[in-house]
Amino acid sequence: MLDFLNSRKTIRKYLQKDVDDALITELLEAAFRASTTGNMQLYSIVVTRDEHQKERLSPTHFNQPTFKNAPVSLTFCADFNRFNKWCEQRNAQPGYDNFLSFLTAAIDALLVAQTFCIAAESKGLGICYLGTVTYNAKKIAEILDLPKFVVPVATITLGYPDENSVQTDRLPVEGLIHSETYKDYSNEAINNLYAYKESLPENKKFTADNNKETLAQVFTDIRYKKADNEFFSASFLEFLKEQGFL
Amino acid sequence: MLDFLNSRKTIRKYLQKDVDDALITELLEAAFRASTTGNMQLYSIVVTRDEHQKERLSPTHFNQPTFKNAPVSLTFCADFNRFNKWCEQRNAQPGYDNFLSFLTAAIDALLVAQTFCIAAESKGLGICYLGTVTYNAKKIAEILDLPKFVVPVATITLGYPDENSVQTDRLPVEGLIHSETYKDYSNEAINNLYAYKESLPENKKFTADNNKETLAQVFTDIRYKKADNEFFSASFLEFLKEQGFL
Repeated sequence: MLDFLNSRKTIRKYLQKDVDDALITELLEAAFRASTTGNMQLYSIVVTRDEHQKERLSPTHFNQPTFKNAPVSLTFCADFNRFNKWCEQRNAQPGYDNFLSFLTAAIDALLVAQTFCIAAESKGLGICYLGTVTYNAKKIAEILDLPKFVVPVATITLGYPDENSVQTDRLPVEGLIHSETYKDYSNEAINNLYAYKESLPENKKFTADNNKETLAQVFTDIRYKKADNEFFSASFLEFLKEQGFL
Repeated sequence: MLDFLNSRKTIRKYLQKDVDDALITELLEAAFRASTTGNMQLYSIVVTRDEHQKERLSPTHFNQPTFKNAPVSLTFCADFNRFNKWCEQRNAQPGYDNFLSFLTAAIDALLVAQTFCIAAESKGLGICYLGTVTYNAKKIAEILDLPKFVVPVATITLGYPDENSVQTDRLPVEGLIHSETYKDYSNEAINNLYAYKESLPENKKFTADNNKETLAQVFTDIRYKKADNEFFSASFLEFLKEQGFL
């Protein structure tokens, strides 16, 4: 299992080969064995295959080729709608119209999403998480007909790999683990931690191609900019309010 | 792999046998292969073994016997502190003092947490997620010395199993999967989905023991009450503000 996990890679190009619906259900069934708060199973999964739905969703994922190319995508949603309905039908007053309940359901949904990914990869499938799901949650919710108390938290593209991608680098393991208390990072520790990443030819090229002095500037000035983060923060919080969680 | 995932169970009682530090590092290393937004690895893990730290943390987890009994626990944190420091040392202006950035880091941390759990279980270890981490995030952060831009999102107890627990029930798989769009639940669909859960002798006993009419009332009136959810929502949002994310 560790060898399998250690060798995994994100896959962004897929064969034009269908992924059987029965297999997806089988993988999800295994994923539903993930831990869930109070065994409430506060999630729903929406499967996208239909070309028309893909076309409508594509702009919400910034028209990423990965999304268009994948035969299937799955959107994992934090879902208190089903549980609330059950409560109401059983003479019980649900009290889940608040932020903690969103967080609880989001955690449930993400544990299932990740378990699904591992299960899928064990069957030779490849996956890619699309970060865009939290940027455009409201538009995605409209296209997927998500009712109140349902919020998408992860979209995964799925298919059989059509690329032999290279594993991306990771920071030194020790730098991410703290014993008993968090040991804050000195300037020297930061230099050491990021040295390998910064030394990689592909990252040097990435920095140069973007006309930046440092790799960090590619993140702050191009990939994950303050103005964008603030814009998407405001829209996500507004959407949480509309969905009943704030 | 699917058989392995399908047979997993949460473990709440552990042998008083140490879990080797090298093994934990090995499992975390595999977990760090999980997908991460822009390869930023926005997480840190704090490992708790020390008896004094366990005693201090125990009330934040409502003195659950599972926490006291486990030889080790791991707290997975959304962490923009390290990344921000790197940016600042590289003449880059981080723009991650907002809700979206918290959500991004929380997702990163949760994918690692769940991958760690699967890796641990594959080595014969047992785990239990403690939902209390989001209730008492601020107190936990104080005890673990978490700086600004670091927020705990999952605490997992870890150890070799000392119980042969029964697998808990799950809702029928089909009821959680939606094709193309979310099909909202009719009264009849809710009745069908929850019928098996409600029929189980242990759930009937649970309802009776708590002097409730329905199982749903055990959730709404005892386990996950509106007043508690509102209290913990307010404290979590306040804490997010203190940590720089709101």
